[in-house]
Amino acid sequence: MSQSSEDLASPWNPVPKGLEGVIVANTMISKIDGKKGRLIYRGYDIQDLAGNVPFEAVAFLLWVGHLPNPLELDTFRKNLAEHRHISSDVRSFLEGTPHEADPLVVLRTAVSTMGLRPTKKDSILEDGLNLASQFPIILSYFQHMRNDEEIIEPRKDLGHASNYIYMLTGEVPSKEHEHALDSYLTLLADHGMNASTFSARVTISTLSDIYSAIVSAIGTLKGPLHGGAPSKVWEMLQEIGQAENVTPWLKERIANKERIMGFGHRIYRTEDPRSKILKKLAKEIANPDTFALASLVESEARKLLQEEHPDRPLDTNVEFYSSLVLNAGGIPTDMFTATFACARSFGWVAHIMEQLADNRIYRPDSEYVGPLDLSVPKMYDAKK
Amino acid sequence: MSQSSEDLASPWNPVPKGLEGVIVANTMISKIDGKKGRLIYRGYDIQDLAGNVPFEAVAFLLWVGHLPNPLELDTFRKNLAEHRHISSDVRSFLEGTPHEADPLVVLRTAVSTMGLRPTKKDSILEDGLNLASQFPIILSYFQHMRNDEEIIEPRKDLGHASNYIYMLTGEVPSKEHEHALDSYLTLLADHGMNASTFSARVTISTLSDIYSAIVSAIGTLKGPLHGGAPSKVWEMLQEIGQAENVTPWLKERIANKERIMGFGHRIYRTEDPRSKILKKLAKEIANPDTFALASLVESEARKLLQEEHPDRPLDTNVEFYSSLVLNAGGIPTDMFTATFACARSFGWVAHIMEQLADNRIYRPDSEYVGPLDLSVPKMYDAKK
Repeated sequence: MSQSSEDLASPWNPVPKGLEGVIVANTMISKIDGKKGRLIYRGYDIQDLAGNVPFEAVAFLLWVGHLPNPLELDTFRKNLAEHRHISSDVRSFLEGTPHEADPLVVLRTAVSTMGLRPTKKDSILEDGLNLASQFPIILSYFQHMRNDEEIIEPRKDLGHASNYIYMLTGEVPSKEHEHALDSYLTLLADHGMNASTFSARVTISTLSDIYSAIVSAIGTLKGPLHGGAPSKVWEMLQEIGQAENVTPWLKERIANKERIMGFGHRIYRTEDPRSKILKKLAKEIANPDTFALASLVESEARKLLQEEHPDRPLDTNVEFYSSLVLNAGGIPTDMFTATFACARSFGWVAHIMEQLADNRIYRPDSEYVGPLDLSVPKMYDAKK
Repeated sequence: MSQSSEDLASPWNPVPKGLEGVIVANTMISKIDGKKGRLIYRGYDIQDLAGNVPFEAVAFLLWVGHLPNPLELDTFRKNLAEHRHISSDVRSFLEGTPHEADPLVVLRTAVSTMGLRPTKKDSILEDGLNLASQFPIILSYFQHMRNDEEIIEPRKDLGHASNYIYMLTGEVPSKEHEHALDSYLTLLADHGMNASTFSARVTISTLSDIYSAIVSAIGTLKGPLHGGAPSKVWEMLQEIGQAENVTPWLKERIANKERIMGFGHRIYRTEDPRSKILKKLAKEIANPDTFALASLVESEARKLLQEEHPDRPLDTNVEFYSSLVLNAGGIPTDMFTATFACARSFGWVAHIMEQLADNRIYRPDSEYVGPLDLSVPKMYDAKK
């Protein structure tokens, strides 16, 4: 008898909880093929992109729609590098930031701070460059500030991945390390209509500004159901410690129905295509003992989980080998999810652009299931 | 041929753009009856609540589910008042805030700053009290800071509405003014699954924190398609200036197909029930000449718009008389939407609590409509 069911007896009501499987937008940015285990960015399989195409070219692809020609790539690289400086507002925010703050909260607040002064250039591309180029700077500044170390200033001659590692560690990464983090950024840059991307689109759909939309996305990614807990995979490997502990450790967890970190994904019915590539990258740059331990955990867990749930195969997800790649790249454990945000910021900006190009406000409905026609108690009538 | 249509040939795909009319959650918080022009909070008609029931009791109703008894109301009032102090983080953020910043961006950043230090008490009610009680403080601090005036510290003996006016103006409001702003807060506190409320629910659905969710909501409200432009109604009235200008001014606008500010709402097919009450409140506290001018603009615009669109009646929306009430209450014109946020923050918190009580991540789908099976150009192969 509620308004919703009276007015809106439509085939799409009710929709599944959490909007699972409900198409809320058409997109030309990325496609997840959950059955085949493929992820496509604007027509290209990420298997062909990651590691072959430099991350800046992938970013250009996501934003502009095609892979850049040499001139376009050169210009885009320079543009990104030119934006490698933070405003005095952001700098003084970071200087006052408590050292114990969650890096994602620091990132969220720093980006909100960036919106305090209205930009002169009213260009979404300009704002996107400004935002995406500064994520790594904000994080590495905070890293040094909380450790009472000297700030390492950005370098404009390095690539996006390379500059991030340089700013964090003070050393220009090796070719292998640069390649691995560059590939990581490509792999994590977009992933269909995930919760953070959706929240960015909902926010921008009111014709709010890009800073508001990115702030929404960061806050949404912060939740463990989305941004996950890649640092927990790392902690798990530390806890297991050595090969002989793997099987008993896993068996105990499974017997207690505890979750094994880094396994399973809602979308992929088969192996997460990102996970396969991350494993290769981890093999290239991680400590060989750690990699061997992780591989053993993977194969043992896969076997044990399959015995437990033969109908529901559980493969490693994107978090599992990410943790090895990020650790080897010099990223502090508690900045793994914030580094995920560095990659995903490029996807968020692409979706914000796409939403604005054909916008309609997201203003869904709810079904009222509470009481009706209550009378205000007498005690309040006296106050009239 | 996309994954979505292969995997998910379901009756709810495709859904209308912007999710219009799509039920994304069951709620016991509020119900909009668009046909009858009614707004219900947990069973009570807002016509019975606004002005009769003190705003603090309405806030308790939204959060807890029933109108408080005298003891509950007293405790809730004290709790709200006890939280009337901002942290040193927020204070130093405000001290460094550029004076030209948009008050909503200041609010968004201040709330993000509140999340920098993890709270000790892990209670959503505690966090909600902390947040909602501080919106007016943040705004009035900023108001005095940008005007190089002395800060007016909050008073714990005043009600929520009264304290806000006191902090802004330095004067405890008259009974009429307090009553009007208290009623305004009630009227604007919740409104079904609007875009900002939805964004708060999407963010919290990843099990992120309440600060992230409120930050999303503020950023989403900031967009003119949602938070509107109540200040523009005020500017319009200033521009029209006097009675004899009303008809020619409106006719010119309508002839040029320009929008008349403060008219029309997507949801109500009849008069917005909040607008009717706001008109009464405006009559009580606004300057009589301004009120007379606004009434004339209302009746003339209604007449002219009906001649233009006989099929689509356009009544005043919540913004129209809000602008008179807020101005008479001493709210600066550019803080009208931020004051709307002060009211709506109570609804956001209620929805966050409701979402967490029965959560599922909002992870919808998108339909990929871009190209497929593209090959990476040769120029990139060389880089392998």
